[in-house]
Amino acid sequence: MPRYAMKIEYVGTPFAGWQRQTDLATVQGAVEAALGHLDESVGPIAAAGRTDAGVHAEGQVAHCDLAREWDAFRLAEAVNYHLKPAPVAVTAVAAVADDWHARFSALERRYRYRVVARRAPLTRDARLAWRVPGPLDLAAMRAGAAHLVGHHDFTTFRSTMCQAASPEKTLDAVEIVETPYPGGVAYEFNLRARSFLHNQVRSLVGTLERVGAGRWPPERVREALEARDRAACGPVAPPDGLTLVGVGYAPDPFVAGGRI
Amino acid sequence: MPRYAMKIEYVGTPFAGWQRQTDLATVQGAVEAALGHLDESVGPIAAAGRTDAGVHAEGQVAHCDLAREWDAFRLAEAVNYHLKPAPVAVTAVAAVADDWHARFSALERRYRYRVVARRAPLTRDARLAWRVPGPLDLAAMRAGAAHLVGHHDFTTFRSTMCQAASPEKTLDAVEIVETPYPGGVAYEFNLRARSFLHNQVRSLVGTLERVGAGRWPPERVREALEARDRAACGPVAPPDGLTLVGVGYAPDPFVAGGRI
Repeated sequence: MPRYAMKIEYVGTPFAGWQRQTDLATVQGAVEAALGHLDESVGPIAAAGRTDAGVHAEGQVAHCDLAREWDAFRLAEAVNYHLKPAPVAVTAVAAVADDWHARFSALERRYRYRVVARRAPLTRDARLAWRVPGPLDLAAMRAGAAHLVGHHDFTTFRSTMCQAASPEKTLDAVEIVETPYPGGVAYEFNLRARSFLHNQVRSLVGTLERVGAGRWPPERVREALEARDRAACGPVAPPDGLTLVGVGYAPDPFVAGGRI
Repeated sequence: MPRYAMKIEYVGTPFAGWQRQTDLATVQGAVEAALGHLDESVGPIAAAGRTDAGVHAEGQVAHCDLAREWDAFRLAEAVNYHLKPAPVAVTAVAAVADDWHARFSALERRYRYRVVARRAPLTRDARLAWRVPGPLDLAAMRAGAAHLVGHHDFTTFRSTMCQAASPEKTLDAVEIVETPYPGGVAYEFNLRARSFLHNQVRSLVGTLERVGAGRWPPERVREALEARDRAACGPVAPPDGLTLVGVGYAPDPFVAGGRI
């Protein structure tokens, strides 16, 4: 059966996460239902990142096997037609080999976490950022983040529900950028790794926020990491600020004109 | 009575515009209702820009007269408390002189219009940008926009409902920036003038989009301007993409620590 990779964008707010669940709206369920209108035989689809409830995506990647061949552009248009009015859209489609796998072929996941520091409630970013009341210390957060980059046992920073076989991961980068924001200031945390543990990004950002707020010295991040104890983690940041920005493959199946 | 300037951010989607209307939700109505909880005697408030239905603001400015003196920070907190859950927030408050006026003291209005060119429907920006199907010619749009900058009779580019005494305005700048966007490309139109006519920004952007799509040569923008005829205008761009970014005053009442 021909296999297709889909790049998917969504607002996570109305969904109980990516993964299909009985009687709950999920992104996987929405995409599978849309595909079902085109191909009755379509089976479950696999995704690179199983985002949690309320977490968004700009570049989630999933693949599906269809009974017949489709033009990539027409397939994207047809899926988007059936996805309406859900806040989910297929932004690119590419034909891939039978053994290409959205999850297992992925070499890198990129996440962005947005924090807005201001007193006033958020309006357009109400479900798209984590609001904290006052400005954060950028240099301190960067110093704290430096302890996290590299190959570590991230037991402290994974959910107790995490099903990964090993808590060891290599975190390639944590870049923190400060930008102006109406009535305050915004911080963008850009994280990059081959793969992440369950709740790892939100655990890291929640911990770095404590450092930025002056409640934790940056060194406490290293101590927390070395403790390998979930109880040493800072508060887990809310899902609203988190977006799966993109997934890396070599070669990138979407480069050869898959963009619609 | 002490007078206060308020900087106001809102998502325009659920509102029938800024200006109060009987039996319709408006931003002015929401802010006045919130102020009414603090001060029963509060009268109508005046704003720098009377945005249309569906148009957003990051930096709308309005002023109000209150019966007693308020600490700026506490006033903003109290108004925001009563504004919930509407997507409206006061991001700054400043005490101003009795003769300071949000509309008549304003020296400059800044608007941003966002266009996203891609085939897929928008998700997070569904009501925050105008989606067009294909990429636009940036150089051609800039060439078209150059005809508009300066002092002109903008009869072509104002609504027939416009109540301004004169169609002559000075457009100080139209800057167009292209940025990457998932599955496509985004264009930001940044416009600056002392004041704008009714529907002027949306009329200009709708016309420049025709140029960017290759349907109008850039020179036709000049011809349309010189025609001084509403019928010569391109299609009016939808409200979703438009945001009142800020209002300029000299001195800026919010500079002296009014930010909350």
